[in-house]
Amino acid sequence: MRTRAAVALEAGKPLEIMEVNLEGPKAGEVMVEIKATGICHTDEFTLSGADPEGLFPSILGHEGAGVVVEVGPGVTSVKPGDHVIPLYTPECRQCASCLSGKTNLCTAIRATQGQGLMPDGTTRFSMLDGTPIYHYMGCSTFSNYTVLPEIAVAKVREDAPFDKICYIGCGVTTGIGAVINTAKVEIGAKAVVFGLGGIGLNVLQGLRLAGADMIIGVDLNDDKKPMAEHFGMTHFINPKNCENVVQEIVNLTKTPFDQIGGADYSFDCTGNVKVMRDALECTHRGWGQSIIIGVAPAGAEISTRPFQLVTGRVWKGTAFGGARGRTDVPQIVNWYMDGKIEIDPMITHTLKLDDINKGFDLMHSGESIRSVVLY
Amino acid sequence: MRTRAAVALEAGKPLEIMEVNLEGPKAGEVMVEIKATGICHTDEFTLSGADPEGLFPSILGHEGAGVVVEVGPGVTSVKPGDHVIPLYTPECRQCASCLSGKTNLCTAIRATQGQGLMPDGTTRFSMLDGTPIYHYMGCSTFSNYTVLPEIAVAKVREDAPFDKICYIGCGVTTGIGAVINTAKVEIGAKAVVFGLGGIGLNVLQGLRLAGADMIIGVDLNDDKKPMAEHFGMTHFINPKNCENVVQEIVNLTKTPFDQIGGADYSFDCTGNVKVMRDALECTHRGWGQSIIIGVAPAGAEISTRPFQLVTGRVWKGTAFGGARGRTDVPQIVNWYMDGKIEIDPMITHTLKLDDINKGFDLMHSGESIRSVVLY
Repeated sequence: MRTRAAVALEAGKPLEIMEVNLEGPKAGEVMVEIKATGICHTDEFTLSGADPEGLFPSILGHEGAGVVVEVGPGVTSVKPGDHVIPLYTPECRQCASCLSGKTNLCTAIRATQGQGLMPDGTTRFSMLDGTPIYHYMGCSTFSNYTVLPEIAVAKVREDAPFDKICYIGCGVTTGIGAVINTAKVEIGAKAVVFGLGGIGLNVLQGLRLAGADMIIGVDLNDDKKPMAEHFGMTHFINPKNCENVVQEIVNLTKTPFDQIGGADYSFDCTGNVKVMRDALECTHRGWGQSIIIGVAPAGAEISTRPFQLVTGRVWKGTAFGGARGRTDVPQIVNWYMDGKIEIDPMITHTLKLDDINKGFDLMHSGESIRSVVLY
Repeated sequence: MRTRAAVALEAGKPLEIMEVNLEGPKAGEVMVEIKATGICHTDEFTLSGADPEGLFPSILGHEGAGVVVEVGPGVTSVKPGDHVIPLYTPECRQCASCLSGKTNLCTAIRATQGQGLMPDGTTRFSMLDGTPIYHYMGCSTFSNYTVLPEIAVAKVREDAPFDKICYIGCGVTTGIGAVINTAKVEIGAKAVVFGLGGIGLNVLQGLRLAGADMIIGVDLNDDKKPMAEHFGMTHFINPKNCENVVQEIVNLTKTPFDQIGGADYSFDCTGNVKVMRDALECTHRGWGQSIIIGVAPAGAEISTRPFQLVTGRVWKGTAFGGARGRTDVPQIVNWYMDGKIEIDPMITHTLKLDDINKGFDLMHSGESIRSVVLY
């Protein structure tokens, strides 16, 4: 069949909207009609050419929601008509990683996914002249129809609006999951969030959900403050207005009883390796945990004195918020539908596929939190 | 009163054995007759002048065992005649750190201890001409008699031999505690220990105690192998004999089911920041934890790509093995007496106080695992 898609023909160029060929699902695969997709910084990272593993031509997009339209042989967990969210982190429930109970980083199809291929080593997309088009993060949600492995879709309730829950396919789950799954923040904690963009806002609401007492936001842009407060931030620090942001956080978290000070948990949502160091070093001696969420530029390294760890701080990272896609994503959709978490104010722009490049412009200019393409 | 002690008069010089003045215990303090003390690399670190916080003149030594001979006003938890192990990490059970339940790093007397002083801001030791002599790590076990805060002694059973359990005052607890308290290694785990000196051997036996399946030792010196095997090592790697120690460990830990490979836990006992990086990067994607035990040179920094953490590895450190001194040290003495852990083969040399400098020579030449001074 044919489908309309925004194709990344080469690095650094705008996407091109065109008709492409899409083969039907093979064994263990499903075809999904994408109803809505967010535009995420990771798409931009690859499109820009900064991603050393970027492949072209490809169909980007990894934050979608849609409806199953066809299933290949052997597919048992979903059927046509089911509402699903594509998963760039699949959950096979069979591999050593899934069965460890210690990680969400399923490895069943890692090798082929990283090469822009379906598990059988081929692509389902091709140009009208037959040239194969690579898949992206196993999702390719910038196509109106896409094919995914069965283990890479989370079945969700049918009353949830596509144009909002698509954001659960990446940003929402990453931010909230970092708090709940990776840091396991407890009621009464003091936490700091560096970077108050889309991921940072979701970390904030994750902290509110987890019952944190003090939720400190750090950003170079004062304009981020009102929205951050809406999502649970209790204190704001602009590093431009203080000499040393680490010391500022330590002072802010001191109490008459605890004169050591420091955050119980910190989250880096900037991708800046210097900020990652501050995020570690502002945590509390003895038990502070710092979680890296942001994606650093290729080759960048984090560093600190080992004394920071020997005196009890813990340095961690998270991918897809530590969430097991098929198990945890449907629950996060429930939380949204129950009003436990908010998504609507973060979807600042909705666009048609034809205008998808405008979504990248809005991201560059800092005007959008999240732009969503509606098919 | 007067006592014999080995005094560090200045950095880089041998200790001098002499008579010094010792004031009796003030409120909340106890006087202990030290019966035996180990000589640890940390003593050497300070004596050499490499420790930027080193103070002189001081009485070093922090790995001792002895008998309480006198208690100051208000002391209730120990009495004359009690056998005790001095604690460089005290346990007040009252401060924010102790009450957090998350760390052993009691902060009740941290400031004065770091300045070589008792909690009231003075020293109990002085030269015969009245010049104050600094305490060291709150212990100063290189003196036949010493004064310590009550919260800095662990009461232990009276049938345990001083010349062995003194090692529990630092090395044994640090190594075993890193496994049990900090890493919380589970039965069946695969673990790697970098550096098979005194701390490394204790990590090995901690791993054996915890039921680890694969206990890999890494050291540049093949001669360490027999003793390491005695303490539980199942596999040995000499980095001189392989191209890439990280890849070697990953390959060794692969199974037909788990083709990712990597250690579940790793421990750095070298203090070398490059080794610390290898220790992190050889752990398993998704859940590997690396624990820094070794003390790095002043100013040295660890570094890695944040991707290592984002894909699920955790970087931690440990001090005194995460052990709460008064609570956990008596239990480790019990384990020794019950034969659950071994200490005797690690005490390779016993010396008189007059020969204490020979103990440092044995450490430099690599001849000793642990030298113990008997008073």
